[in-house]
Amino acid sequence: MRIGYLGPEASFTHYAVKSVFINEEYIAFPTIPDCLEALAEKKVDRAVVPLENALEGSVPITVDYLFHDVDLHITAELISPIEQHLMVHPDHEHEWQDVSRIMSHSHALAQCHKYLYYRFRGVTLEPSTSTSAAAQYVSAHPEENIAAIGNALAADTYGLTVVEENIHDFHFNHTRFVVLTSELETELLPFEHDAEKTTLMVTLPSDDRPGALHQVLSAFSWRQLSLSKIESRPLKTGLGNYFFIIDVERPVDGILMQGAIEELEALGCTVKVLGSYKKHMLLPQK
Amino acid sequence: MRIGYLGPEASFTHYAVKSVFINEEYIAFPTIPDCLEALAEKKVDRAVVPLENALEGSVPITVDYLFHDVDLHITAELISPIEQHLMVHPDHEHEWQDVSRIMSHSHALAQCHKYLYYRFRGVTLEPSTSTSAAAQYVSAHPEENIAAIGNALAADTYGLTVVEENIHDFHFNHTRFVVLTSELETELLPFEHDAEKTTLMVTLPSDDRPGALHQVLSAFSWRQLSLSKIESRPLKTGLGNYFFIIDVERPVDGILMQGAIEELEALGCTVKVLGSYKKHMLLPQK
Repeated sequence: MRIGYLGPEASFTHYAVKSVFINEEYIAFPTIPDCLEALAEKKVDRAVVPLENALEGSVPITVDYLFHDVDLHITAELISPIEQHLMVHPDHEHEWQDVSRIMSHSHALAQCHKYLYYRFRGVTLEPSTSTSAAAQYVSAHPEENIAAIGNALAADTYGLTVVEENIHDFHFNHTRFVVLTSELETELLPFEHDAEKTTLMVTLPSDDRPGALHQVLSAFSWRQLSLSKIESRPLKTGLGNYFFIIDVERPVDGILMQGAIEELEALGCTVKVLGSYKKHMLLPQK
Repeated sequence: MRIGYLGPEASFTHYAVKSVFINEEYIAFPTIPDCLEALAEKKVDRAVVPLENALEGSVPITVDYLFHDVDLHITAELISPIEQHLMVHPDHEHEWQDVSRIMSHSHALAQCHKYLYYRFRGVTLEPSTSTSAAAQYVSAHPEENIAAIGNALAADTYGLTVVEENIHDFHFNHTRFVVLTSELETELLPFEHDAEKTTLMVTLPSDDRPGALHQVLSAFSWRQLSLSKIESRPLKTGLGNYFFIIDVERPVDGILMQGAIEELEALGCTVKVLGSYKKHMLLPQK
């Protein structure tokens, strides 16, 4: 099977993919849209991309691309601990406190904001396209005393020395990765998992009357269908117009779920079932 | 009055600040936390930062910093049209279709994703700390055939030539900027505005029972208090724990609003009134 993932090599997504898909062909893509388009065009059989981080919230480009641009489905969820480390070229192992620049993906920089604010105030923070791209750059430029923030796999892959571990501001930092396919089906991975849940994308009626969202929640509430997440995203038709991503703690094929979805549609909502799938917890990297 | 804003010079925020605060002292800050901290420490009298974009959604660092880190209040809202242009150094005006790199803030790159995908596929997209930093870099490197994406003010300020106008994928692109103070008060700017509205930050009871959000919405719904926005953000205590930002189309001091807030608190919710303020629409740049 060909598994597309958000690269480059040694990204957090790469680690998640390697943890559950053993002996498959891994194909890295430079951006989330590239990865999703490859699946839509059947150049890969699965696409794995980040959907939500416990600190930063949803990954907007993933959510928006799944809503606006492609017709794909979540078939499994992978939850991976995210541990950010400060790493330098081995040549600078003893002078890392004097680095002139720190590079990483903007989300990783944000996740370590307090650490950087108190320990490296005034040092230039440079956004890169990914944490592993930052590690790769540091590895290729031993002449500069600079640091990258990233994961243990990236330090290993690019031969960097981790000089401070776990510099992210909040513990409990996890990222939800989703495995996507072109069909609405549930992936059976040979790992422990929780009960199946369903992700819906709901657009309110276009007259957008006050209280419509309250009505939507009522359809779940009176059936005692628990929502583990509700989030709004812009419809891109103007400020103040949103669609909602709703996670319900039930598989989609139950009679209560089917009843709720039919009722929402009767109220004038548009409902897309993004997936009905199981959650897998991954172990930390080493 | 000292007005702190998210810089650097010629940023979209700078344009918003210049539109409503005339003959005041403007002070640019390199990051949103720096700008908010300066207000908290009374080094400035107002802070102006972006809160939400019509395409990208909320600016996570603004929302999260206001919830977790500082006790500040929204005193006015500025809504500015966002128009992204492709610009190059005048030396490369006639060969811009062969640029080797395109630089901009990651949000601006995302806002022009389709344009870039179809017109410049394969060209390196390089994230910068702001659209104006990208323009400044292009201006300072005439030896490279590279482009920046940014606003008209940045092209003017850094002497670049706009080679394609309005390359953002969706029209109706606006950003909501907020004017913040340390006190809960309403700013009276001498400009046309809409009726006053209120922004609340609501945390559900810690037992987080199913249906709690439905109850919260009921408190507004049965009083016919219209919500123009509801959004969840991570509490940073683990995946699945959120707080909610709710915009209500009423000033905070009305009897119905006070009743709703008291009821939410009686239900065990924590409610922070982030502000009760008026909305000002700004004109497009030139």
